[in-house]
Amino acid sequence: MAHGGASHARPSLPLLPLLITACVLLYTPVAARAQRAAYIIHMDKSAMPSHHSDHREWYSAAVASVRDASTRYRVEPRLLYTYDEALHGFAASLSASELRALRGTPGFVSAYPDRRATTPHDTTHSMEFLNLNSVNGLWPAGKFGEGIIIGMIDTGVWPESASFNDDGMPPVPSRWRGTCETGEEFTPSMCNRKLIGARYFNKGVMAANPHINISMNSTRDSSGHGTHTSSTAAGSPVPCASFFGYGLGTARGVAPRAHVAMYKVSWLEGRYASDVLAGMDAAIADGVDIISISSGFDGVPLYEDPVAIAAFGAIERGILVSASAGNEGPDLGTLHNGIPWLLTVAAGTVDRQMYAGTVYYDDMQSSITGISTYPADAWIVDTKLVYNDAISACDSKAAFANLTTTMVVCDTGNLTDQMITVWEAGVAAAIFISDDVDFESTMPFPAVLISPEDAPRLLGYIKSSTLPTGTLKLQETIVGTRPAPVVTSYTSRGPSKSYPGVLKPDVMAPGDRILASWAPVEPLSQIGQTPLIGNFLVASGTSMACPHASGIAALLRAAHPDWSPAMIKSAMMTTATTIDNANNPITYAGFENNTVASPLAMGSGHVDPNAAMDPGLVFDAGPEDFVALLCATNYTNAQIMAITRSPTAYNCSSASSDVNYPSFVAIFGANATSGDMRFKRTVTNVGAGSAVYRAAWVSPTNVVVAVSPGTLEFSTVGQTATFEVVIKLTAATGGEPAFGAVVWADVSGKYRVRTPYVVL
Amino acid sequence: MAHGGASHARPSLPLLPLLITACVLLYTPVAARAQRAAYIIHMDKSAMPSHHSDHREWYSAAVASVRDASTRYRVEPRLLYTYDEALHGFAASLSASELRALRGTPGFVSAYPDRRATTPHDTTHSMEFLNLNSVNGLWPAGKFGEGIIIGMIDTGVWPESASFNDDGMPPVPSRWRGTCETGEEFTPSMCNRKLIGARYFNKGVMAANPHINISMNSTRDSSGHGTHTSSTAAGSPVPCASFFGYGLGTARGVAPRAHVAMYKVSWLEGRYASDVLAGMDAAIADGVDIISISSGFDGVPLYEDPVAIAAFGAIERGILVSASAGNEGPDLGTLHNGIPWLLTVAAGTVDRQMYAGTVYYDDMQSSITGISTYPADAWIVDTKLVYNDAISACDSKAAFANLTTTMVVCDTGNLTDQMITVWEAGVAAAIFISDDVDFESTMPFPAVLISPEDAPRLLGYIKSSTLPTGTLKLQETIVGTRPAPVVTSYTSRGPSKSYPGVLKPDVMAPGDRILASWAPVEPLSQIGQTPLIGNFLVASGTSMACPHASGIAALLRAAHPDWSPAMIKSAMMTTATTIDNANNPITYAGFENNTVASPLAMGSGHVDPNAAMDPGLVFDAGPEDFVALLCATNYTNAQIMAITRSPTAYNCSSASSDVNYPSFVAIFGANATSGDMRFKRTVTNVGAGSAVYRAAWVSPTNVVVAVSPGTLEFSTVGQTATFEVVIKLTAATGGEPAFGAVVWADVSGKYRVRTPYVVL
Repeated sequence: MAHGGASHARPSLPLLPLLITACVLLYTPVAARAQRAAYIIHMDKSAMPSHHSDHREWYSAAVASVRDASTRYRVEPRLLYTYDEALHGFAASLSASELRALRGTPGFVSAYPDRRATTPHDTTHSMEFLNLNSVNGLWPAGKFGEGIIIGMIDTGVWPESASFNDDGMPPVPSRWRGTCETGEEFTPSMCNRKLIGARYFNKGVMAANPHINISMNSTRDSSGHGTHTSSTAAGSPVPCASFFGYGLGTARGVAPRAHVAMYKVSWLEGRYASDVLAGMDAAIADGVDIISISSGFDGVPLYEDPVAIAAFGAIERGILVSASAGNEGPDLGTLHNGIPWLLTVAAGTVDRQMYAGTVYYDDMQSSITGISTYPADAWIVDTKLVYNDAISACDSKAAFANLTTTMVVCDTGNLTDQMITVWEAGVAAAIFISDDVDFESTMPFPAVLISPEDAPRLLGYIKSSTLPTGTLKLQETIVGTRPAPVVTSYTSRGPSKSYPGVLKPDVMAPGDRILASWAPVEPLSQIGQTPLIGNFLVASGTSMACPHASGIAALLRAAHPDWSPAMIKSAMMTTATTIDNANNPITYAGFENNTVASPLAMGSGHVDPNAAMDPGLVFDAGPEDFVALLCATNYTNAQIMAITRSPTAYNCSSASSDVNYPSFVAIFGANATSGDMRFKRTVTNVGAGSAVYRAAWVSPTNVVVAVSPGTLEFSTVGQTATFEVVIKLTAATGGEPAFGAVVWADVSGKYRVRTPYVVL
Repeated sequence: MAHGGASHARPSLPLLPLLITACVLLYTPVAARAQRAAYIIHMDKSAMPSHHSDHREWYSAAVASVRDASTRYRVEPRLLYTYDEALHGFAASLSASELRALRGTPGFVSAYPDRRATTPHDTTHSMEFLNLNSVNGLWPAGKFGEGIIIGMIDTGVWPESASFNDDGMPPVPSRWRGTCETGEEFTPSMCNRKLIGARYFNKGVMAANPHINISMNSTRDSSGHGTHTSSTAAGSPVPCASFFGYGLGTARGVAPRAHVAMYKVSWLEGRYASDVLAGMDAAIADGVDIISISSGFDGVPLYEDPVAIAAFGAIERGILVSASAGNEGPDLGTLHNGIPWLLTVAAGTVDRQMYAGTVYYDDMQSSITGISTYPADAWIVDTKLVYNDAISACDSKAAFANLTTTMVVCDTGNLTDQMITVWEAGVAAAIFISDDVDFESTMPFPAVLISPEDAPRLLGYIKSSTLPTGTLKLQETIVGTRPAPVVTSYTSRGPSKSYPGVLKPDVMAPGDRILASWAPVEPLSQIGQTPLIGNFLVASGTSMACPHASGIAALLRAAHPDWSPAMIKSAMMTTATTIDNANNPITYAGFENNTVASPLAMGSGHVDPNAAMDPGLVFDAGPEDFVALLCATNYTNAQIMAITRSPTAYNCSSASSDVNYPSFVAIFGANATSGDMRFKRTVTNVGAGSAVYRAAWVSPTNVVVAVSPGTLEFSTVGQTATFEVVIKLTAATGGEPAFGAVVWADVSGKYRVRTPYVVL
């Protein structure tokens, strides 16, 4: 309460939605006519004239040299950021003519307007669901993330959150070059052994909005999103965390002993590519091991996508980038961050019904468990149940005039309208018949949603009783629900528009109804007219899935310090599971219910951290392999160099779209009736010395798969072997993507290396 | 919810009081004129005629032989219980003439009517406050109570409470002879390794109320009291326990690995001496190590006090009995269970302000922390503060008509009336100026009580501001408050009316605002009109202090299996502290504020379990010593035998009121101006072999103390030494009890054996 003292109006909370689903990333070029706008400029650093002492001076001079002296502009051209890790170049506020002039400067590679994304974003029982435990598997093997630094590119952090308590944390690694920046309501003393870095980047926001007043001009989280994602990735254990009693338990990050460095690039005032680039550039320079970014830019080519550009710089330094797929599902092709050299994460559910409540009736002999979000231990005991034609539509306050001490039952209808009506009427409690299985809005009065399937039992009792009564028990949470995981309806789907040739997303991780820390900046629930505050929030989205994957990557980095980002990613992908806790193939939630999920929705499957610790074989790929991939596109040299930076470190002598990836996309086109595609892959033995693997595959109708050789033999660790997969189309697929998998199983039965494929 | 299904009316809860203070123990002889009534009959078992096979047959035959065949009585004379451990004898429903006939039966010792007590009763940061920790001291030394069985004489138990979870508990000791009885909503399968016994005794209740319908005819707790006391003594750890968010933390018993056996003798329908005797008799026979009884019988002589009678049987078997002093303070002489051969426990506070809330004002620059019990994380943000002559009395709903969205301030007044007025008026929030530092009623709407000392700051701000606003943060709990402990105002005071010659109470233990498990049988709080249920309750009373002492005794029994009940009691008494956490002498709460507490209120002081583990010297006393004490009274032989049972095991050859007790009472009378009393004591060395102790003392004005010898030398463990204390009155004390202490300190500085005295 020492913070967040900004003047709030008394909150009125009409059924506050708790689901963070909207991830509307608007591509808004801000280059306007008669004023300067921000651009991101890629430069060839090798072309720097020798009279400049360093690249910063050079970029600064370049901006100064193109200055348009006309008085049409209120402000001078300005250098906003210089970049050196994520890209070579800078961001500057320039006029159109200045930008034109800059194009003629020696070393200029490319330029594009800074871009903004609105509502930028895509939570802890999930550790149990992931089978992480202190006794064996990846948690102890990865020392709970000890020594690893996770860089979070997000909305900032609430440093007072209990998740950033550093009790028992090891010292800050000596290699750490980051800082804890002073800012509004933020001092360097707010960093500690858990939160080791805090930096903020908003020159892009301010350049685009010259008269803006940044509402929290520091790394302090003014939304809660960054506090949630960072506590999910690496939060310290917090006992007795809950969302107003729901999900009560110990909240902790996936890598609870890893360090967190926050790079605040997302602002209430907007999120701009130049700021994201600056944050990722700084994270790389500061020495993070993992970058976690729970947001993306939609509809941009790789060479103008700040995440793609910076992630390439990251993998050159051995830094794995984990990014959210987006919340634009379930339509195909809605995914962002579909970048071949990073890990794209989809969101699945966990085996927990977070918001439950139970109706007891017939003298406590019968009960129906449904959904409730009422934020207290309400106990409505033996209260008269009312259900009749006069009230069951629950659309008239007047109908409840004499029923304020009763429990009313509402038929299926417009749930929000019904809840407001019943609430305003002031009845003691209500039961709503509703098929909204995803309901999670606030309930300011005691109520339970029951399904239309369960309702007849209750209604039958009411009709047959002279004095029907019911009892409500709220604030329940049920674990062990089945099936789980299922693919959420909102998780964005592949194929990746920015590069359809690599199967995206890569993996699915827990992202639905995740409980983690939140910034206490606004009320999170209410009872009657009384708003409630909380330090934890249940949130859903790929934003919540991404930091789970980032935490697992941190554990793998700690367990295998010699693995490349591609090897870590491969281990997570080839060991992912496609089977749910009811032992059936993973399916979709919602209207796609009971359909087996496609790799376009969940990638290789649901992450299995303990299996990823020891994958047997891995598919490695370095920066040069992704350069070869870029060379096989129709990108210009300048576009490629926007990503690769150096004209000399890489060349296009071995262009190939067939990158060594642990999945396959065979694109024949919707109308094709035949054809075949060949994929060459090399696997590295990271298992137990000598091993023999045999190939097997699953293929859909009209697709034939061949793998050669069919057996791979290894005698030593580190040994590689190469094989070819042929995917052959024998008849039209009917326009629907088809999918299957190639599986390498070692004869000892210990390892199973699964690589999914999609036929488009 | 499978239980407690009894038909409840919809609860209306006008400010439910949470303090269990009333302990009105009415002595109600139930022998009525023309019907049979229950009597407790003491018999001399050695006088049993040889033709009876056992005492049960004898007692049964005795009852049958006195049968009055007249038809005036609706029911036959009945044997209710036979007793053999706590006493020799039985309880029976008899007519007046039958009782007269029984008096002539050979072996008859004494008889008195069964008696009932009404509202029979007198939780868990207290472990920290007692410095119990897993690393060192009595917890590890006493193996957390492992192997010890605590018999609870109480209202039953809620077996589903998480406090009776037996995860990790050792097996039931093979010596255990108890059972888990079937009854209403109770099956033997509800017992486990934690709750190893469950028996219930209500023949006395039913005999006194022939047409009664017992509302929960089993060991299931229908009140919550027994669940609270037993979880306090020996509950398993329960993480995240709280009272609607207040006091959040792990709840656990003092002896968390001890076993619990519940003997339900207190009923919603009444508590009768015959049932209490039956419960204690069974506990002794079943093989418990400690008996804990949080209730007592007021105004009865020792030879008719079921607790005194049964406790004598207990100490003969090496069982320590711990009993509550009662909640009838602060007047002197209000104590019950003032029985020389058991441990009488007073209630002190702990260093925790359970119910706190804070008012922030002046743009969050200033704050006042007060009292709130609102049961949720309410957050009233920047809300208009209203304080003016029209509303400040808060005695008129009409005055608030246009103020429902404001935070109103009420002057000192009738707090309950004001709260009801403000609540019914429906204002958003309220601040009450009140000096009720013990407020703990429910608050169905957001409010904070601030003290008259703090109020002027807030009122000054309101008056000086054009638009005063305030923010409330509720559901706070503050630990580390000082001073603590203080003696509660309600804890009953000595001297003991049943035996004033022994200083009572013996010790003080945490008893105020103790959080422990409760039976979920009725709502415990409310928000607006919505009742709330909880599995934990904050309760206050000597009922809560007693199980703390019982748990410590269990730990000491585990650490020192060879110690007698008197040695355990002595260790707890001589090491108790008289200094609070502000390093001042322990004082009284409430109106006696800042006065140094007398041993008549807190006995030897506040228990210090870690010190009690290693007391240096102990004062031992066996059953024969207490017989000598009884022989020095003017009791008849039959009255003494009612307690001692056997006419042969003991005799009165060495009558002495000077029992070897670790405290002294020097009774001169209010008008005495001089006199001296001599006390002879024997201490046993239980410290580290050789030791030299020197005597010191503290004495009040007009009292002179002499101790001889002044030095005690020991060379071996188990060695005893005897000394004499002379307390001499030199002038009138003025009618007020005076007090002091004799302290034996060993020269190494390790041990300090303190024995308080009172001059009456």
